[in-house]
Amino acid sequence: MSISYPLILINFKSYRQSSGKKAVELAKVAEKVFKKTGIQIAVAPQLTDLALVAQSVEIPVFSQHVDDVVPGAHTGHVTLEAIKDAGAVGTLLNHSERRIRIDQIDSIVKRAKELKLITCVCANTPEVSAAVAAINPTMVAIEPPELIGTGIPVSKAKPEIITKTLELVRQVNSEVAVLCGAGISTGEDVKAAIKLGTKGVLLASGVVKAKDWYKAIMNLVEPLLK
Amino acid sequence: MSISYPLILINFKSYRQSSGKKAVELAKVAEKVFKKTGIQIAVAPQLTDLALVAQSVEIPVFSQHVDDVVPGAHTGHVTLEAIKDAGAVGTLLNHSERRIRIDQIDSIVKRAKELKLITCVCANTPEVSAAVAAINPTMVAIEPPELIGTGIPVSKAKPEIITKTLELVRQVNSEVAVLCGAGISTGEDVKAAIKLGTKGVLLASGVVKAKDWYKAIMNLVEPLLK
Amino acid sequence: MSISYPLILINFKSYRQSSGKKAVELAKVAEKVFKKTGIQIAVAPQLTDLALVAQSVEIPVFSQHVDDVVPGAHTGHVTLEAIKDAGAVGTLLNHSERRIRIDQIDSIVKRAKELKLITCVCANTPEVSAAVAAINPTMVAIEPPELIGTGIPVSKAKPEIITKTLELVRQVNSEVAVLCGAGISTGEDVKAAIKLGTKGVLLASGVVKAKDWYKAIMNLVEPLLK
Amino acid sequence: MSISYPLILINFKSYRQSSGKKAVELAKVAEKVFKKTGIQIAVAPQLTDLALVAQSVEIPVFSQHVDDVVPGAHTGHVTLEAIKDAGAVGTLLNHSERRIRIDQIDSIVKRAKELKLITCVCANTPEVSAAVAAINPTMVAIEPPELIGTGIPVSKAKPEIITKTLELVRQVNSEVAVLCGAGISTGEDVKAAIKLGTKGVLLASGVVKAKDWYKAIMNLVEPLLK
Repeated sequence: MSISYPLILINFKSYRQSSGKKAVELAKVAEKVFKKTGIQIAVAPQLTDLALVAQSVEIPVFSQHVDDVVPGAHTGHVTLEAIKDAGAVGTLLNHSERRIRIDQIDSIVKRAKELKLITCVCANTPEVSAAVAAINPTMVAIEPPELIGTGIPVSKAKPEIITKTLELVRQVNSEVAVLCGAGISTGEDVKAAIKLGTKGVLLASGVVKAKDWYKAIMNLVEPLLK
Repeated sequence: MSISYPLILINFKSYRQSSGKKAVELAKVAEKVFKKTGIQIAVAPQLTDLALVAQSVEIPVFSQHVDDVVPGAHTGHVTLEAIKDAGAVGTLLNHSERRIRIDQIDSIVKRAKELKLITCVCANTPEVSAAVAAINPTMVAIEPPELIGTGIPVSKAKPEIITKTLELVRQVNSEVAVLCGAGISTGEDVKAAIKLGTKGVLLASGVVKAKDWYKAIMNLVEPLLK
Repeated sequence: MSISYPLILINFKSYRQSSGKKAVELAKVAEKVFKKTGIQIAVAPQLTDLALVAQSVEIPVFSQHVDDVVPGAHTGHVTLEAIKDAGAVGTLLNHSERRIRIDQIDSIVKRAKELKLITCVCANTPEVSAAVAAINPTMVAIEPPELIGTGIPVSKAKPEIITKTLELVRQVNSEVAVLCGAGISTGEDVKAAIKLGTKGVLLASGVVKAKDWYKAIMNLVEPLLK
Repeated sequence: MSISYPLILINFKSYRQSSGKKAVELAKVAEKVFKKTGIQIAVAPQLTDLALVAQSVEIPVFSQHVDDVVPGAHTGHVTLEAIKDAGAVGTLLNHSERRIRIDQIDSIVKRAKELKLITCVCANTPEVSAAVAAINPTMVAIEPPELIGTGIPVSKAKPEIITKTLELVRQVNSEVAVLCGAGISTGEDVKAAIKLGTKGVLLASGVVKAKDWYKAIMNLVEPLLK
């Protein structure tokens, strides 16, 4: 599966607002905006909703996490094969709320490539971004943890973190797409992120907690339409 | 939600044979046996298939694992609320392949009670079984890890582990139902487990890897029919 | 090694005030109070100082933690054998700042018994205290995490947690000694804890951060002298 | 503290042969060889023996592990400050037997620099080696886990892993020294490792389990003497 940029990747996290039936509803709203605007939108529902959401929409669906295990006798784990069978096109990895070890990132990214699954590896600093870029995932998402969920957009509050990340990542591996996240909630934030050189954004509460999902997502993509 | 005993609880683990569409198929076969025999059968599909399976069948669906977090900004975690929204009636906890800490078991079991969700806490020794019984879950499942997946049934190979577990658990908390697992694959194994005083069995490969799921499950419940 | 009660167990945690040479100094002050008063005092220095402290004093020295591994190819782990070779008489386990799994507690406590090492297993609630008592350690230390380091003594602020713990633990295993901790810093706090039925206290900042270690420890044991 | 190359870094792991008093003995043998030959030898004793060993010898002493916490209320953890107070000059990190997360490596390496402590970060593949090099530690040690403890030296059995590691690490960060480990036990293995371009070796059982420690270490350094 290939993905086009710029990309708006919506992480449903463990919010109750985006759980169960509401997960399907939110994914359908995201799909509607995609169909209307052509801007690439993807969703990462909760693990328990993955198969249900993936069979309900046509936009790309990501897992929020994958464990470093192969199919077999592993209770309560998430394999790459399981997310593929569930209909996902890829997975987030190493989110600040679900860090994994570098050897596990290496192992999962290599196996994801064989399974033609997309990997978006999160990182908290420019140096960690460069480190995970050396592993050669599809994307790296830089997210300063102190801004996550604040509504203070990294693209405006700390643009130097993004530019330093882009610089370090390019030195290590110029083929990796860089996204940014943390505090993103408006189209202006997205535009600023793209201007700095990123290929898109990873966001969560800015959409999930919005009263009107359609408006919130439309607002994000509008500055990208011209 | 209440559950009746004896209980046959089928853990799909991370086997590829029981992933995605096949998870729905296997759950439907289990439902068919339940409808035909009236013996309580429950299924624990992979996390990613939970909502899809739960909306496809009417027998009780369990999660394989839950994290000790409440709904909110937790990427890649599984909350009690998420499994409830997905349609599950309860969850396995502390499986030997997914151990958690005792304070987490305490916290999850207490919250599960408020949410009216069933908890089946796994344990590897009689002493650990007694320990988790003190937390007051719905069920404790004793599974000696060295027999898991071997086809050598705990109920026949190590009956003294089951009887010691029953004895210690009763001393601590006589209201907790005791299941047993590890190596269970035939109706004879199930019968032996019930005879020893357990309320049912937890099993996985004995069903999941069987060529004919219907036959395998029917074989398990048959000795319980008279 | 046997230990006498009442017991004052001083946890050095990772405070810089009790690290390296200062660890030896603090242990010697504790030893001086023991020699003067005869009240049993024990110390739990940082892992890195364990052998050095244990060879410097004659009062009982505990490890702050032990991993569930046997001697062998395990880098960066702490074995029961290593703490014994270092001169410790036992170990804290499952402190709220270093929780481990119940199966690991079970395995470590059983092996500690064979090695004649003392185990003091921490717990955060009465139910978890009862659970770990079922494992049969030497002691259980109940510490409500919300009071740790506050200076608000559990023995005065939440006596009902201690009495409920004592009640549940006795039902499960009457041979386990119960200590309490969290917020303990004065002799009055210790006296209140003993009066409720505990065999002693586990404390840290109340001593480690005191300006005058000798005075602080003397103050703790004085009400126990008559 | 600076360190000179080539470096022979001896990891005592959790072997009983190198625990307690024997840790001091083994460190003194290593010191004796260093004094006789001038070849840089360093030791990484068990955590519990760190302060005792560090005050007994004059060769560089490393910790086997450090946790990503600052001094304070952290029971059973190892801080950079504690190993410094104990007399260590640096630490191993992310050994295959004690993996940590990439964000923790980043945080620890940055703080170690401020404290003038040396960091030797282990990696299991060339890609992971490049990743950790991006974090800018003092050294990276490539160790294919499948060869650890086998006596089959990586420098002879899989030289291509070492050369690929050197190539990838240089692209990312040419200032990082590369060591190699796994299966090293003879001077020939060390020589082969140096010839390939590494700055030294990390080894454990080859020395710790040897009947004659002096002979074993002398044998390692001899080929480096001319």
